[in-house]
Amino acid sequence: MSAPTPASPLTHFDAQGQAHMVDVGGKEATHRVARAGGHIRMAPATLALIRDGHAKKGDVLGVARIAAIQAAKRTADLIPLCHPLPITRVAVEFRLDEAASRVECSVQVETLGRTGVEMEALTAVQVGLLTVYDMCKAADRGMVIGEVRVLEKRGGKSGDWTAAG
Amino acid sequence: MSAPTPASPLTHFDAQGQAHMVDVGGKEATHRVARAGGHIRMAPATLALIRDGHAKKGDVLGVARIAAIQAAKRTADLIPLCHPLPITRVAVEFRLDEAASRVECSVQVETLGRTGVEMEALTAVQVGLLTVYDMCKAADRGMVIGEVRVLEKRGGKSGDWTAAG
Amino acid sequence: MSAPTPASPLTHFDAQGQAHMVDVGGKEATHRVARAGGHIRMAPATLALIRDGHAKKGDVLGVARIAAIQAAKRTADLIPLCHPLPITRVAVEFRLDEAASRVECSVQVETLGRTGVEMEALTAVQVGLLTVYDMCKAADRGMVIGEVRVLEKRGGKSGDWTAAG
Amino acid sequence: MSAPTPASPLTHFDAQGQAHMVDVGGKEATHRVARAGGHIRMAPATLALIRDGHAKKGDVLGVARIAAIQAAKRTADLIPLCHPLPITRVAVEFRLDEAASRVECSVQVETLGRTGVEMEALTAVQVGLLTVYDMCKAADRGMVIGEVRVLEKRGGKSGDWTAAG
Amino acid sequence: MSAPTPASPLTHFDAQGQAHMVDVGGKEATHRVARAGGHIRMAPATLALIRDGHAKKGDVLGVARIAAIQAAKRTADLIPLCHPLPITRVAVEFRLDEAASRVECSVQVETLGRTGVEMEALTAVQVGLLTVYDMCKAADRGMVIGEVRVLEKRGGKSGDWTAAG
Amino acid sequence: MSAPTPASPLTHFDAQGQAHMVDVGGKEATHRVARAGGHIRMAPATLALIRDGHAKKGDVLGVARIAAIQAAKRTADLIPLCHPLPITRVAVEFRLDEAASRVECSVQVETLGRTGVEMEALTAVQVGLLTVYDMCKAADRGMVIGEVRVLEKRGGKSGDWTAAG
Repeated sequence: MSAPTPASPLTHFDAQGQAHMVDVGGKEATHRVARAGGHIRMAPATLALIRDGHAKKGDVLGVARIAAIQAAKRTADLIPLCHPLPITRVAVEFRLDEAASRVECSVQVETLGRTGVEMEALTAVQVGLLTVYDMCKAADRGMVIGEVRVLEKRGGKSGDWTAAG
Repeated sequence: MSAPTPASPLTHFDAQGQAHMVDVGGKEATHRVARAGGHIRMAPATLALIRDGHAKKGDVLGVARIAAIQAAKRTADLIPLCHPLPITRVAVEFRLDEAASRVECSVQVETLGRTGVEMEALTAVQVGLLTVYDMCKAADRGMVIGEVRVLEKRGGKSGDWTAAG
Repeated sequence: MSAPTPASPLTHFDAQGQAHMVDVGGKEATHRVARAGGHIRMAPATLALIRDGHAKKGDVLGVARIAAIQAAKRTADLIPLCHPLPITRVAVEFRLDEAASRVECSVQVETLGRTGVEMEALTAVQVGLLTVYDMCKAADRGMVIGEVRVLEKRGGKSGDWTAAG
Repeated sequence: MSAPTPASPLTHFDAQGQAHMVDVGGKEATHRVARAGGHIRMAPATLALIRDGHAKKGDVLGVARIAAIQAAKRTADLIPLCHPLPITRVAVEFRLDEAASRVECSVQVETLGRTGVEMEALTAVQVGLLTVYDMCKAADRGMVIGEVRVLEKRGGKSGDWTAAG
Repeated sequence: MSAPTPASPLTHFDAQGQAHMVDVGGKEATHRVARAGGHIRMAPATLALIRDGHAKKGDVLGVARIAAIQAAKRTADLIPLCHPLPITRVAVEFRLDEAASRVECSVQVETLGRTGVEMEALTAVQVGLLTVYDMCKAADRGMVIGEVRVLEKRGGKSGDWTAAG
Repeated sequence: MSAPTPASPLTHFDAQGQAHMVDVGGKEATHRVARAGGHIRMAPATLALIRDGHAKKGDVLGVARIAAIQAAKRTADLIPLCHPLPITRVAVEFRLDEAASRVECSVQVETLGRTGVEMEALTAVQVGLLTVYDMCKAADRGMVIGEVRVLEKRGGKSGDWTAAG
């Protein structure tokens, strides 16, 4: 699942253990990209409703895509210690995986900013999948959201990073 | 994973397939409860940082709990077709599962309203876990959020419901 | 255009002329409905882009509909003296008027509340039309939003009302 | 009404017709200005209430001006595919047109950013006029908002633009 | 300054010391009123600017009043454990105290809800006074906000309460 | 209390006395720092609850610190004429003053922006102290917030400034 970077402090706390918004004033505003993904598993009949609806009965994924994009912009409002960032791009992709009976979502966010946009990408994925849940819950309450994680990160001093397998 | 309720339409679309916020004006304002859960898997060393920090170096879960409670109140702002609801209670619980190397989160939300609070409970879980990610990401980028789902729902005309397994 | 109700005070100001949020505590929470409408005029080629996109190249009206619904929920945040209201329904309709080369939008909002929902319906129309502008502005900067008004209002002590002509 | 720029794609959709927030990372942060305008028509008696109130009974336009300025700052929250922008100036002007029995509103917004501020100027006009409606609706439900459009745009690669007559 | 109610627990924490939004589902929705006050001290020349501006050069208190009313509606968004409440009335009063060279602000908030509105009244006072600071800070950076407190509270099971002296 | 800067206009109004968001487009984006402080006085028994709770029964100041940080990010939403600013750092400190029976709060905010961050620092202090009030009000309704002011300001064309005494 994860190969942690070598023993690092929890940077969101100061020396006294108090939460703070860390100083990014000394970091350069550079091009940064993050891509996150996740999925929502559901009954095959529910997946069929989404697939068929796309064409005529109601575009679940179209609504979820808008919710995901808007959520990326609300990230600093939702995550207490996140810095506000000037997002320059958000792209959301949904894919139906019939074999696994799930909808997969991946989001790429870009900025010219002083910190990365992993949280923006993750928040967009989460709200996109939550919106799918909301729109299908009358048909299937047992849907499960899973494997939400950062897939890739580029730019910034800590360099590029790609999730293991 | 899920035993869907019998073939139901996607209620968030009208007869023409257009998204709408469904009419709940005819439903009674009754006591409704929803409980949702999920977890975030991480490297054991990261889990140790959270466990130890709780005591002295920084209370990751204390911050995440506040973020989760606030997110429950923002649900109708984030999920396009959700109705605004007068939340009467939010309780957030975190549990460290050392064996599985993960933090588990469960949230119970209550209302005296015209629709259920599943979305509020799910949104709180998601933002709580995202905040854990944010606060530990300097130590471990590979954390994965999973198994986010409704665990239980009580009240309302559709009756009580508990997740299988 | 308008037959004003007989000489009434500006109720949003007190006796000293200071703005306040008027007391609605003495009014009953009843079923109230408001319908508002408006349009956006554009070049015929732009209207064609919207009409064709609906099918395959990009669903402008689907995005605008979501924006309109969400805006209805943000009304009390945007209009300083509006009361927050528990919206129970929002329905948004778009219609292409090829003859007049414009997109018409109408929105119906309902509540079980202590004041009417005209402002919610108007705000939804405005943001729906603004979103159409945003999505088509690369093709046509000269679009004009017009005739935004309340069409109908039902419920509440002041009774029902329908816009003239 | 409008001379559209030559046949252009709907840039808010990708090649598959999916909505996205377009990449502005390659555009330069330059000084950009947009001016938008619109009006609200009302019964002459209502206009008189606004004119007289300005002096002593209640400053409708003072409240509407604040609402307009604040709305400019909320634009990216309201319009799904808008980029957040660092607004550097907002100026709102109201003018009573006694002959036409309407209040005219124009708003100028400026930024040092990577995209234009037309949407910010339009949103401010709309919310300013909606606030006038809200404050006068007890006296006159039949008011109509009209002719909301971009008047002028300066800066950015697409160059300067002024609305035709 | 304060006669505390007899030794009471911090109700915002559960038995394990974890923050939660307390259950108000069992409380009745009744008419509740809270009044809060506070002031901002400034140089006499600054107070004169506000007093004179009211008439012609710029209505500082008119802007601050709108900010205060809007802030009352944002309270549950700002204060983590506050319940969202359907505010039914907000009235804001400013008074110039020339002798003490300060602007006094008092706010009354009412609801038909399950908890009191003290936090809404206090938040409105604070944001009203902050807005005065913002608008006058170019003239006087040394202004000080003080004596912000609940003055009176009516309704609810805990009964009426008035601040001492 | 305050030595005002020499007779200055109220810059938030234009020549006609209308409120506007002043043009900062001509100012350079430089490193700016502001520090603000304030306190909340309470009964000694209430202060003891906070002091003891920190260790085990409930961390009032931990919750208030998160609220303060988030409020700094909401400043431009709350204060009508404030410019949105890219905050680069927020640090919140609480101190128990047993002798005076009060909790002191100080907040430092930094940006690389075109205007100062005094309002962000003041807003964070206010919301931090309001959150302390909220969490302790069941025990002590008579708490009073006082001496909220800017303590220090660095950067920007107007130079550095420190509050007198």
